[in-house]
Amino acid sequence: MALELDIIARHFQQPGLAGDPLKHRHIRLGIGDDCALLNVPRGKQLALSMDVLVEGVHFPADAPPALLAQRALAVNLSDLAAMGADPFCFTLGLTMPAADEAWLSGFSAGLKESAERYACPLVGGNLARGPLQVAIQVQGLLPKGDALLRSQARPGHDVWVSGETGRAGLALEWLQGKCPDISTEQEEELLAAYYRPEPRLALGQELRDVASAAQDVSDGLLIDLSRLAQQSRVKITVEIAAMPLAGILTSLRDSSDVFRLAMTAGDDYELVFTAASSKRRAVQAAARKAGVTVSRIGTVSAGEGVDVLDLSGRPLAFEAAGFEHFR
Amino acid sequence: MALELDIIARHFQQPGLAGDPLKHRHIRLGIGDDCALLNVPRGKQLALSMDVLVEGVHFPADAPPALLAQRALAVNLSDLAAMGADPFCFTLGLTMPAADEAWLSGFSAGLKESAERYACPLVGGNLARGPLQVAIQVQGLLPKGDALLRSQARPGHDVWVSGETGRAGLALEWLQGKCPDISTEQEEELLAAYYRPEPRLALGQELRDVASAAQDVSDGLLIDLSRLAQQSRVKITVEIAAMPLAGILTSLRDSSDVFRLAMTAGDDYELVFTAASSKRRAVQAAARKAGVTVSRIGTVSAGEGVDVLDLSGRPLAFEAAGFEHFR
Repeated sequence: MALELDIIARHFQQPGLAGDPLKHRHIRLGIGDDCALLNVPRGKQLALSMDVLVEGVHFPADAPPALLAQRALAVNLSDLAAMGADPFCFTLGLTMPAADEAWLSGFSAGLKESAERYACPLVGGNLARGPLQVAIQVQGLLPKGDALLRSQARPGHDVWVSGETGRAGLALEWLQGKCPDISTEQEEELLAAYYRPEPRLALGQELRDVASAAQDVSDGLLIDLSRLAQQSRVKITVEIAAMPLAGILTSLRDSSDVFRLAMTAGDDYELVFTAASSKRRAVQAAARKAGVTVSRIGTVSAGEGVDVLDLSGRPLAFEAAGFEHFR
Repeated sequence: MALELDIIARHFQQPGLAGDPLKHRHIRLGIGDDCALLNVPRGKQLALSMDVLVEGVHFPADAPPALLAQRALAVNLSDLAAMGADPFCFTLGLTMPAADEAWLSGFSAGLKESAERYACPLVGGNLARGPLQVAIQVQGLLPKGDALLRSQARPGHDVWVSGETGRAGLALEWLQGKCPDISTEQEEELLAAYYRPEPRLALGQELRDVASAAQDVSDGLLIDLSRLAQQSRVKITVEIAAMPLAGILTSLRDSSDVFRLAMTAGDDYELVFTAASSKRRAVQAAARKAGVTVSRIGTVSAGEGVDVLDLSGRPLAFEAAGFEHFR
């Protein structure tokens, strides 16, 4: 059986995945010593975020390893996007029951593709025996003082969301067998939504001087908005009529189900953000530059919590606001 | 049952553990947003290291939570020590089967004690349901270009080790019931060696201008030395007669067992390092300043691999060089 260092050398120290010293000149030392060493350029701040994905909790037991790798990196990059940061590098803490060479090849190939695509190489980490879990920490760079925080929404600001939400939630229900009889094309769309979410990095960067507050939609729009409202000490009102709805949701589910998925399902990794109403043109321009659609879905006012208004302006209630561990 | 954010607020955002904005002025944003934000001071490099501890693999199922927390942070700080870095801050990815308030109180109290002791606050991370695992990433700071690497040992240099090795290995055998009839005092010494290893941070920092190469003893002196030899492309010869032996080892085990433990048992988190022979006084002075004993145990020469010579100068063989996952 292969030993740790052999596995690391064969699967994780490969060019592309572990970066190229010429292309990544601020990474002074990558995989293989006690620590990685980074030079943070002058005038920049370092942004850090760690997410752990657990088999059976965050992904199905038979998840394709390449897609799992890409999903694990994407959910971390999405946190950088929500601060407006540029990807710098990442570390990986992988535990697995046994050294399965085929699985490792698939996993590292998927990881390499994403590392190259986002110019975010692997610089270190840890490999150990244990239940299958993928811990990733991303490091990002930001011009000092430019980070998009959750605490800066103010009464009078608009609330925006990128893309459409609920697609990954529908994908999860489909993976759980709750969505039979769909076309191959629809299957592909759902698989991609679940395993290959697109971190909205370009949008986050374009919004640095435009948005007031931002966060990503990881546990569900409603619960994530309630966190933003709490940290900004404001109230947020969302009009369900303004919500962007994915075609696949409206074609497969009836309207109450569509709203439930769009408002409370997690894993879409879209950005939800606020901006002064004087910035509407700037928001649209930023979105165009980033190649992403954005929708104005509500407003910020004094108060606390999140209200969702139905098509006739009455408050809508949902059974759960989103995904919570330890409920 | 408590929800994630409540658990984080109650157990992990407490003063001391999560740091103090006045004391840690380079930490611009800690727990609670999408990312933590750090300012890296001019002239400094950032050192990163991540370790994952798995229940049943890296610690017993009934490990006391406060000690487990301290051990998890210590093994990461030891990697900073091996580079000569100063602790900056850490992130935590904790997965656990259920939100056990008593366990969480113990865990966060232990973590807080260590965070304050090493001036290394918690700045972010992730809490999720899953098998019990503790992933920690430490961030450290180093004057640019001053890191102690594994690749700089040269023929003619001496090989040194701090403290004594094998104590944590004996502790593990005792925890596994292989070491009956020991005194309460001996029990305490072994428990401390296993759960509260002392990362050799001061020694690492003092050695920055003195040692040529360094690494910490995490998997066993022999296997860790072989990694250092491999990365420096040199041969290392250790004389067993020069090895510092802990009193508790020699009083409880016979000599072949003592040598096996001292050479191949992991988890002591001492530093093993090389230095030019002209630096012997400087090494001793660095050790005195750090309040740690060091022993000169061998030499570096041209070639590859690690030889251990017995009391009469003949090569000694060991069944295993140290701990390996996926053997």
